[in-house]
Formats: sequence, structure tokens, C-alpha cells
Amino acid sequence: MRYHVPIRLRWSDLDAYNHVNNSRVLSLLEEARVRTFWTSDDGEASPLAVIEGHQGASTQTLIARHEIEYLAAIPYQAQPIDIHLWVGRLGAASCEVGYEVWSPPLEAGPDHTEGRTKYVVAASTIVFIDTASQRPRRISDAERHAWAPYVEEPAKFRGTR
Amino acid sequence: MRYHVPIRLRWSDLDAYNHVNNSRVLSLLEEARVRTFWTSDDGEASPLAVIEGHQGASTQTLIARHEIEYLAAIPYQAQPIDIHLWVGRLGAASCEVGYEVWSPPLEAGPDHTEGRTKYVVAASTIVFIDTASQRPRRISDAERHAWAPYVEEPAKFRGTR
Amino acid sequence: MRYHVPIRLRWSDLDAYNHVNNSRVLSLLEEARVRTFWTSDDGEASPLAVIEGHQGASTQTLIARHEIEYLAAIPYQAQPIDIHLWVGRLGAASCEVGYEVWSPPLEAGPDHTEGRTKYVVAASTIVFIDTASQRPRRISDAERHAWAPYVEEPAKFRGTR
Amino acid sequence: MRYHVPIRLRWSDLDAYNHVNNSRVLSLLEEARVRTFWTSDDGEASPLAVIEGHQGASTQTLIARHEIEYLAAIPYQAQPIDIHLWVGRLGAASCEVGYEVWSPPLEAGPDHTEGRTKYVVAASTIVFIDTASQRPRRISDAERHAWAPYVEEPAKFRGTR
Repeated sequence: MRYHVPIRLRWSDLDAYNHVNNSRVLSLLEEARVRTFWTSDDGEASPLAVIEGHQGASTQTLIARHEIEYLAAIPYQAQPIDIHLWVGRLGAASCEVGYEVWSPPLEAGPDHTEGRTKYVVAASTIVFIDTASQRPRRISDAERHAWAPYVEEPAKFRGTR
Repeated sequence: MRYHVPIRLRWSDLDAYNHVNNSRVLSLLEEARVRTFWTSDDGEASPLAVIEGHQGASTQTLIARHEIEYLAAIPYQAQPIDIHLWVGRLGAASCEVGYEVWSPPLEAGPDHTEGRTKYVVAASTIVFIDTASQRPRRISDAERHAWAPYVEEPAKFRGTR
Repeated sequence: MRYHVPIRLRWSDLDAYNHVNNSRVLSLLEEARVRTFWTSDDGEASPLAVIEGHQGASTQTLIARHEIEYLAAIPYQAQPIDIHLWVGRLGAASCEVGYEVWSPPLEAGPDHTEGRTKYVVAASTIVFIDTASQRPRRISDAERHAWAPYVEEPAKFRGTR
Repeated sequence: MRYHVPIRLRWSDLDAYNHVNNSRVLSLLEEARVRTFWTSDDGEASPLAVIEGHQGASTQTLIARHEIEYLAAIPYQAQPIDIHLWVGRLGAASCEVGYEVWSPPLEAGPDHTEGRTKYVVAASTIVFIDTASQRPRRISDAERHAWAPYVEEPAKFRGTR
């Protein structure tokens, strides 16, 4: 199962080529991760949100690796783009998040991708750091339990590397 | 009358002090201006949206001046902050946009500011450039007509400068 | 007297209009302030650098206000642009920094501005916060002494506001 | 052979964790690419700079893919960090650029990495687009000739993906 995060673009996400800058796309994926995985006092509850994200929290999340393929340029648009997230791998002290970035959902809803543009496929390896010791810590049972329904095949890339 | 634009923060808007960076606030105001004043094929229609913002449009908008006061630090939060915009001055070929940036609306709605935090007061002078000649052009009657209901007193600053 | 900070642009400073974004200019001024006023373990010593900028330092600097006028668009260029800084007002617990942003110095050196483009004039009011109490603190004698040679007339703006 | 680009950090590259944001690192790699591969009217000539980067040029460069591993957090520092670039693969209409990001060179010079920190390893696949037709175009002989001395083994990643 995938979790869907609508992310509204800003005009400042564009670069001089007049589409969303390729580096900025990673900031959009970051925002989607934050909204998906971090607890929030005032937001809609994501079922995956079991990591305390506020400063001084006992866990920090660290990016160890990104892989990202750009399939189509993203223009500025008023409707939020649709970021799909899932857990592609669940290790002892790290996990891989998979993403697809799609043009806004049509009336049939976010699970229907027919007639829409897939802009980006990506994957991030995330390590969980214990704030006190600054060392990696194991993924907890509560985290595994919350994320289990969202474990899917890892993101597939075209690149033959 | 003021126009209200809800703007969702991103975690990347924070700087190393863990609140929204002061320069970044101007990007948020920019986004509020774009959503207010630019026509859009796919967005909710703002009644002030009479400027074509797409590339190759006949008008470019140019910022001549900003003045901005920071009254309180803006923390990351899930609910969109509430940016009020109005037209503080309407000249021949330029106008001044006034802004107030507030914490998210409570149940009573965006016009009720009691119990909320005013983060920022700002004003921007905007010049309208004819794309073909690259020279300032006069504000049109259609623009004046659309903006007239939103003309208010210019933004008031505490600074004694 | 003015202090000169060369700041190299990045292509990502451009927006979809293909010149340096107006909000981004404030990030460039921020960087010039940091290099001018913050002590550094590994950098060239600025004579004004008497504020400890590292995290956990006893002072935090807070922006209370910016005023900025854009006189000419800034294109991407390989040579660093030339930011002039000075102290326009020196109060009890705050000061105003003045800036001019110029195209790169010619052979005659950064003090010679003939034949060059003045892109921006700006001023920022900075408040000094005691990190422990999170309250404004007075400017120290050491700070006054270091900055005295760089006190000049406050920045002059064209705007008739 | 590798080409070295010194890139000066900005305080605004930091995120709320007080080190350079992982997405922002890709902007730093972008800047290194621009300085390496794009011709410039006013800069130091890189021997690899054979692509016209100005707007309206006959070629646009498009990012098809990034892979990036973060080995160590990058703190703010006054000395420029040292980005190594090379050509890891040279195809018909695309190439792969390899990067390593290192802490600033010591006295022995940028080729000596002993005692220094390797922050990042990355690779980008770049496609060359003919501006007029908006279709990929072949890499020219002049480009192959300029880049040949900088062809090395592709970037090596630890990730077992």
C-alpha cells in the first residue's frame, strides 16, 4: 500500500529553465517524508507517523543515500502534485523509502494514475540515530507495526547502472 | 478588504536556528502574491487574479522594494499559516502590496485574529513591465477594477526609521 | 568606512525570470553579514568579526527588520559580486547594517564604483539576544570598539514611502 | 584525472539539524557542474567548459538521474569545500558525471586527501538537449576531445542496492 502526500509547488521551486529544479525535487520528497513519518501536534495524523520530529526528540533521521530518476519536467501548477511513499526495505537500523511523484489526481482519485504524468521515481535510505548517543538505533516494534502495511517492492529504476 | 492565502510551510524553510529563515519569509510572500494576482488554468480563482503569470505572458512583474518587520519567530507547523494581502497604494505604473503573516486561523475563521500570533508585517512595491518593450506599463482599468475592493491603508510599521 | 564581501553567485540563485530572485538577494546579504560579523576558526579575519556565530554561542542575532530596494536585475556571472556593509546606526541593544550590492570590482579596486552597476541598497535592523535568557542584551564595549570605524550614514532609499 | 571546484558554503545551506541539508548538497553539485562544463565570458576557463550555458544557447543540459551517498555531515565552514568531478561514462547522447565532496584542501594541495573528510560520493546522468528541437542530441567531437582526459572509473557506492 502507498501513502499519498499532496505537495503544493511554489513558484520559487522553478529554476531558470522554468521548471522545478532537479535538486529542489529532493526538498519536496523531504517534505513528503516529514508529513508521513513525523508525529505532529496539529496536523492530520498519518498512520505512519511514529517518529517524533521536533527538536530535542530522542531520534534524528539521517539520509544515507538517495537515488532519483527524472522522467518528465515538472511545471508550476496550482493543484498539488501527488507524492506516493512506501517502505521498500525494512532493515535492522535503517529503511528504504520509495517514492513516485505524479501530476495531480484526477476525479477518479489518487490511486488512479491513468492519463497522468509520472515525473519522478526515487528511493532514500534512512538511518535512525539516537540523539543522546549520536549512534544508529534499531527500528522499534511500534515502528515496524505502523509501517508494515506500507511495505512494497523497492522502487524500480530504468537506469542500467 | 483583505485576501487570505493559506501557505503551508516546509521543514526546509527552517534555518539552523530552527525557525523559518527571515529571507525565506519573502519567498512565502512571493508565493502568496503569485496565488493572489496571477491567473491560473487549474487553480481556485482569486478575484484579484488578472495578471497572466505564465512564461511568454505580455506582462512581467518586478519587485522594486520590500519593507518587512519580523514580530515573532515562525516555527514549523502542519497547519498552513495565514497570509493577508491587500493593495496599500495604487499608482500609475506600480502598486504597493501590504501583507500580514499570521498563525493559522482558529475556528472563528481567518478574519478573527484574537488569540493568534502576528509574525510579520510587510510591504512590496511592484512594477509592471511590458514584456515586449521591457519598459514599465500603466496599470489597466481591468486591473484597477479587480483590485479596488482590496485597497486598504498601507502597512504600518513599528520601526521609527 | 565600508567592509567589502565578495559573494559568488550560484546558478540556483536565479528564478524563472533568469535573474537572481529578489528573496534570494536577502540570503546573499545574510551570508555577507555572517562573514563580516561572526568569528571564524578557519576564515580570513574580518575586523568586525566579534560575534560568536557557532551553535551554542552565548549570543544569537535576530533580524527585526529589512528594507531593500532593487535598482537593477542581477544576472548570473562567474566573478563574485561585491557587497558593501557598514553600520548605519548603533543603538543600545540593536544596530542597523547598511548594504550596497555592486557588480564585481574592476581593476581599480572595490572602492571604485565608476562604470559599475549598483544592484541593490538595503538596511537590516539586528537585535542581539542572550542565548541563555532569550532576551535582548546590550551591545558590548568590545563590539562598539570593533564597529566604530565602520559607522557611516544610514542607507539612503529612493522610495518616497 | 579529476577537476577540482572549490565551493564556498553559505550559512543558509544549513537546515535545522545545523549541517548542510542533504537536498542542498545537490545544488552544490549543480554549481560545480556549471563552473566545470559551461563556457563563461568572465570566469577562469575550465578545460572542460565547452557547453554554452547562457539562456538562448543551442544546448540545454537535463538531469536524468542522480545517485548520492552521504558519508559524513557537512558543517558550515569558511574555507571552500572541494568538489572533485570527472566523467564516469561517455555515451552517445548522455554522460555520467562522478563527484566526490571533500573537506577543504590542506597545504599539500587538493589532490592529497589524507587527513581530510570525504563527505559525499555521487553520480549524475546528463542528457544534452537541442534547444530548437527539444530532443536529445549527440555529444560532439569537440566535447569528447575536451572531456577525454577527465574520463575515470564511474563513482563507486557502498550501498548494496
